Amino acid sequence: MQPISEQLVEIRRGTDEIIPEAELIERLEHGRPLRIKAGFDPTAPDLHLGHTVLINKMHQFQELGHQVIFLIGDFTGMIGDPSGKTTTRPPLTRDDIEENAATYKEQIFKILDPETTEIRFNSEWFLSRGADFMIELASRHTVARMLERDDFRQRYKNEQSISIHEFLYPLVQGYDSVALECDVELGGTDQKFNLLVGRQIQEAYGQPPQVVLTTPLLEGLDGVQKMSKTLDNYVGITDPPDEMFGKLMSVSDDLMWRYFELLSFRPLADIENLEHEVVDGKNPRDCKFDLALEIVDRFHGAGAGEKARAAFIDRYQKGDIPENLELATVTSAEPTLGVAYVLVQAGLSASTSEAIRKISEGAVRIDEQKVTDRNLMIPVGTTAVVQIGKRRIKKVEVKPEAAE
Amino acid sequence: MQPISEQLVEIRRGTDEIIPEAELIERLEHGRPLRIKAGFDPTAPDLHLGHTVLINKMHQFQELGHQVIFLIGDFTGMIGDPSGKTTTRPPLTRDDIEENAATYKEQIFKILDPETTEIRFNSEWFLSRGADFMIELASRHTVARMLERDDFRQRYKNEQSISIHEFLYPLVQGYDSVALECDVELGGTDQKFNLLVGRQIQEAYGQPPQVVLTTPLLEGLDGVQKMSKTLDNYVGITDPPDEMFGKLMSVSDDLMWRYFELLSFRPLADIENLEHEVVDGKNPRDCKFDLALEIVDRFHGAGAGEKARAAFIDRYQKGDIPENLELATVTSAEPTLGVAYVLVQAGLSASTSEAIRKISEGAVRIDEQKVTDRNLMIPVGTTAVVQIGKRRIKKVEVKPEAAE
Repeated sequence: MQPISEQLVEIRRGTDEIIPEAELIERLEHGRPLRIKAGFDPTAPDLHLGHTVLINKMHQFQELGHQVIFLIGDFTGMIGDPSGKTTTRPPLTRDDIEENAATYKEQIFKILDPETTEIRFNSEWFLSRGADFMIELASRHTVARMLERDDFRQRYKNEQSISIHEFLYPLVQGYDSVALECDVELGGTDQKFNLLVGRQIQEAYGQPPQVVLTTPLLEGLDGVQKMSKTLDNYVGITDPPDEMFGKLMSVSDDLMWRYFELLSFRPLADIENLEHEVVDGKNPRDCKFDLALEIVDRFHGAGAGEKARAAFIDRYQKGDIPENLELATVTSAEPTLGVAYVLVQAGLSASTSEAIRKISEGAVRIDEQKVTDRNLMIPVGTTAVVQIGKRRIKKVEVKPEAAE
Repeated sequence: MQPISEQLVEIRRGTDEIIPEAELIERLEHGRPLRIKAGFDPTAPDLHLGHTVLINKMHQFQELGHQVIFLIGDFTGMIGDPSGKTTTRPPLTRDDIEENAATYKEQIFKILDPETTEIRFNSEWFLSRGADFMIELASRHTVARMLERDDFRQRYKNEQSISIHEFLYPLVQGYDSVALECDVELGGTDQKFNLLVGRQIQEAYGQPPQVVLTTPLLEGLDGVQKMSKTLDNYVGITDPPDEMFGKLMSVSDDLMWRYFELLSFRPLADIENLEHEVVDGKNPRDCKFDLALEIVDRFHGAGAGEKARAAFIDRYQKGDIPENLELATVTSAEPTLGVAYVLVQAGLSASTSEAIRKISEGAVRIDEQKVTDRNLMIPVGTTAVVQIGKRRIKKVEVKPEAAE
C-alpha cells in the first residue's frame, strides 16, 4: 500500500468532509485494506455523471488497495413507501431488484473493478429478522436526535407530516454498517446525517464507529444547479458518445476545472499543469477535448472518445453548427423560463404560438437534442445552442435579471 | 341480550369516557356479541383491587353476553426495554410468560368466567412477522401525532430522551386490535392515548375503528392517592381474608361509596337504596361490612367474607383493638412523613430513636401490619390504626399542613 500521506491526497481530492479525519488516519495506520461502503437505492438505476462522483471516490479507494462494498438497499426497497406519500416508489419485487442490480453492475463496472468489488444486498441480514429486531434496533436511537436532521426538523416545524417509518430508514442504513463491519462509509453531502447515524448504531452494537466521507453534489452543465434529470442539465453515462462529447464541450471553462477534479482520473499534478498551460495561453477548448475524450472512453471503451472528438470537429467544420454562433441573452426574474418564451426572447421565433408549432413539428433542438415537451422549463444559468430547423440558430444564455 | 338502554346503564357505570358513545350504541344495535379487548402487561401479575376496576368492567360486558378478550402483551415483553432505561424490565422468557399467564388466570378467574374468556398472546401474530412488517406498521402513523401524547410531549420539551422504539409500542398495541378485530378496547384513563392509536391503526388497515372505554384509577385506602403497591395503600387480591376485610373496613365512608360503584357487583339501584338508608340513620359501618364481605367472598370463596367479618368483630370485642380509639392528628408540609417521626408526633413514642428501636424489635404495627422498614414513608392522607406493642395504640391521621 502507498504511504498514508499519499493515500490522503487522493482520499481528500474533491471530498466535502471526512468525519473525523484523525480516525481515518488511525485506521489507515493499521495497514490492512479498509472496508469502504456506499449505499445505493434499489430503484431503477440510470446514472449520470453526478452519481459517478461517489463511484469515482470508491474507485480511488479501490486503486489504493481497499475493499469497496457496493451496497444495494433492497430490503427497504421491497417495502416501498407504504405511507403512500410518494407515488413513484411502489414496492419492488425480487425480479425488479435482480434486474436493477444487473443494470447497476453494467454501469458501475465501467468505473469499478468487477474482480474486487463486493456487491451486497441488505435483505441478506434483514429479511430473516423479526419484527422484534426492528423494535430492538429502534431502541438504539432517540426521537430528539432524529429530529435534528434538517429536513425532519423543518417538516416538524412546518407541521408537515413525518411518518414514523421514516425514522427507521436511517437506522436500517446504520445497521448495514454493523452487518458489513464498515471502516468508512461514503455518501453525498445530503446523506451526512444518515452516515453519522451509522456511527452511533455501530457504537450501540459494540463496533468502533465508521469514518464518514461525504462527496459534493456535482454541478450540472449549467454550472449553477446540481446535476439532475429533472433539470435536464445532466450527462447520462449511457448517453451516446457524440451526445456525451457535445454536452461536455458545452460547459464553461470554470466548470471544466471542477469536472476535472471530480470526474477525471488524471493525477491532480497533471491537472495543475493543464491549468498553468491555459494561463500561459493554451486554448481551454483543447483541455475540454481531453476531459470529454477521457470520459467518453470510460463509458464507451478506448477509442470512442477519439471518434467522438473527430465527429464533433467534423460537425463544426461541415457547418452543421457554426463554431461562432450569435449569442442571445434572455433574462429572467423566475428560476426557470418556458421554452417557447425563450425562443421568442432569443429572437429565434416571432411569436409564442409559432414557437409551440415548431416544437410540435419536431423542429426545435437544444444542444442538438430535439425538444418534445412544449412545457419544458429552462433553468436560469443555462447556456445552450438553440435552433429551429437548420438555419435559425443561436447560442442562448438564460441569466437572472439581477445580474444584468 | 338485554335492551341497549339497560346495557348502557351497566357499561357507563364508573367509566371515565366512552369514545365515541354513539359508535358503541351503533355496534350494540347489531345485536351480536361485541369483541371486547383489554391488554395486560406480561410481567409478573400481582393484582390489587385497583387493577380489578378494569377486570370488573370486562365482567360486566361478559354478563351482558359479549365476548371478552384478555390480551397478554407478551411480544413486547420478550423484548423488554432494550434502551436500558428501566432496569425493572428484563426480557421475559417463554417460561416466564407461561408462568405469569397461569398466575393471571388464577387471579382473573375469580372475576371472569373461565368458560367464555378468550385469553390471547400478541406473540401469536407478531412473532411470525418480519422486520419489514414493523416498518410497514410504522408508516401508518406520524411523529407529530405520537408527540401529542402528554408524556412524550413533556419529555421532548424537557429534553428528556425518548427512544424511537417507544413510538412503536403504541402501534403494536394498536395492531393487536386489528388482529383481534376488536369492537371495543378497555383500559385505564392513563391508556387513553394508546387506545385511540388503536382506532387509527384499525382504520389504516381497513377496519372500522374500535370504541374506546376508559376506566378511572381507583383511589387507595387513604382516599387520596391512586391505589398502588409503592404507596402501600392497596388491597391485594391475594391478601388473606382477615387482612382484606380489615383494610376495607378502614376506608372512609365517602370512599366506601366509590368502592361500591367500582368494586361491587350489586346493581346500582341496590347501592342507592343503601345510601338512602344511611341518610335515614343506618350505621355506614354496616354497609362497609356488606362491601368487605362481598369482596372477600369473591377472592376467597363464598363464606370467607362472613368468617372474616366474625373474626373482625371478635377482634374488636376481645379488645385487641379498641373500637373507639383515641385520634391523633399529625400535620405535614411534605407529601410523606417518615414512620418514626409520625410515631413521635402522634404521641406514641417519646423519641425518634426509641421509635426506631421499637420498629427493629417488630413491635410497631400499622393497620395490624408489622412495620419492618424503619425508613417507611407515610403519605399525607393516611388514616390508620398505629400501635407499639399492645398498649400504645391510636388512630392516626396524617393531614397536609394547609388543611389545619
